[in-house]
Amino acid sequence: MIEVTSTANPRIKEVRRLHIRKGRDETGLAFIEGLRIAIEAFELGVDFKWLVYCDALLTSQAGRKLVEHFSQKYLDKTLSVSEHVFRYLSGKDGPQGLAAVIQQRWFELDEIDLEGMGIIIALDEIADPGNLGTILRTADSAGARTVILLDNCTDPYDPTSIRASMGALFNIRLVKCSLNDFILWKSHEQIHTVGAAGAAATDYHSAIYPKQMILLMGSERQGLSDQEMQACDQLVSIPMMGRSDSLNVAMATGIILYEILNQHREHGGRKE
Amino acid sequence: MIEVTSTANPRIKEVRRLHIRKGRDETGLAFIEGLRIAIEAFELGVDFKWLVYCDALLTSQAGRKLVEHFSQKYLDKTLSVSEHVFRYLSGKDGPQGLAAVIQQRWFELDEIDLEGMGIIIALDEIADPGNLGTILRTADSAGARTVILLDNCTDPYDPTSIRASMGALFNIRLVKCSLNDFILWKSHEQIHTVGAAGAAATDYHSAIYPKQMILLMGSERQGLSDQEMQACDQLVSIPMMGRSDSLNVAMATGIILYEILNQHREHGGRKE
Repeated sequence: MIEVTSTANPRIKEVRRLHIRKGRDETGLAFIEGLRIAIEAFELGVDFKWLVYCDALLTSQAGRKLVEHFSQKYLDKTLSVSEHVFRYLSGKDGPQGLAAVIQQRWFELDEIDLEGMGIIIALDEIADPGNLGTILRTADSAGARTVILLDNCTDPYDPTSIRASMGALFNIRLVKCSLNDFILWKSHEQIHTVGAAGAAATDYHSAIYPKQMILLMGSERQGLSDQEMQACDQLVSIPMMGRSDSLNVAMATGIILYEILNQHREHGGRKE
Repeated sequence: MIEVTSTANPRIKEVRRLHIRKGRDETGLAFIEGLRIAIEAFELGVDFKWLVYCDALLTSQAGRKLVEHFSQKYLDKTLSVSEHVFRYLSGKDGPQGLAAVIQQRWFELDEIDLEGMGIIIALDEIADPGNLGTILRTADSAGARTVILLDNCTDPYDPTSIRASMGALFNIRLVKCSLNDFILWKSHEQIHTVGAAGAAATDYHSAIYPKQMILLMGSERQGLSDQEMQACDQLVSIPMMGRSDSLNVAMATGIILYEILNQHREHGGRKE
């Protein structure tokens, strides 16, 4: 295979542009980097546009095996690059020589399986990609399978979000829609919606959570808007015993999600 | 007051060195920046070595009031700097013109009040300052008042940790000690110690937590060491329903802390 050695190569420039949101939004692609995540994405059937590797940097056996296996099937999608080029594409201090350009995967509201949906998380205006990735990782761990991103959420395919999600991004069905469409949909389908709000009178631990529900979380700075609170069937708050009046939004999401999971585990096991 | 206009001023150089850990460790000082955190630290009685402000940048009324009030009492500790110098000291994109150099505050193991201690958190080898700050913020919210940092933990006075802690850093008693000293102390005092370990058979939600206890959490990468697990009276795990085999360490700490809080709230309210 011919190794690309120039950062001026148009394909390399296209990959590099995936570091910024505009580049990702315009192409529907994303750049993932590192052994663990590339292998996991491949195993989960993520659609690879290119597998990118650097022979000089890729020392891992598992990584070399993936390249060999992948290139036998998809030679035209395998991209060998020099160390100089890989470091140019890489966001890491110690690049492992394996990366991929993948197709982003998005679902529509009407593709959500209402029977087997379990807990859905809806997020509005999450600004920090690290928070978003942590929410995806925690959602996956708590058994939530669908995350709806409302207007102005940061990009789950941002490298920081991908890293924080630890691969959970590929195990979760992501939906993107407007707040209005979300409210119309959830009202029409009559899905019980729980919102987290610091001022809510109901303690999150006293609330009873149905098996199929939406947990709606607002932005880091503002929490839920009035419109969002009105769209909720129930508002809950997490008790604050210290000086602070709020938790980090990812933390709050995780604490409520595990409370829901615990209640569902106690009352007859998980709904599949 | 005379405004410092040169970044070559020795005092400014000293402040700037607090951005790196060595500078903080050698002096026992830390640099905090921003309206909210400076005001909060002052209100909580944190020991200010200098209050640093920039007249051109400080537009907030509350901030100007603090400067006025502080400089009347401690003129020799008030440092007026030019916009150029403030931006040189600042780690922020939009500096607010208010910052402080504070004395770090640390406690010894034998200063821990064993009667009223409640839940103590012990952390080993937390590498990411954002995680450490988030743990401090969550600990404060869940009513924990003491955090013990064992060998090789990152610095809670790192700017990223301070930011993530949202001021909780000043409301928590921080102890730093070696793992060996910790184990000797907790054994001698016979304090029930719960460790989190992915492989533990006991579900964190089924475990019973005493009112006075230590929650021991390991590093992001390795979790608890064998020695640490042996030092625990109880090991618990958080169920993982998805692909991932672990949660972010701050998230895991928060989820267990709120479970403990919920149990204690159910059984006769909080121990003060």
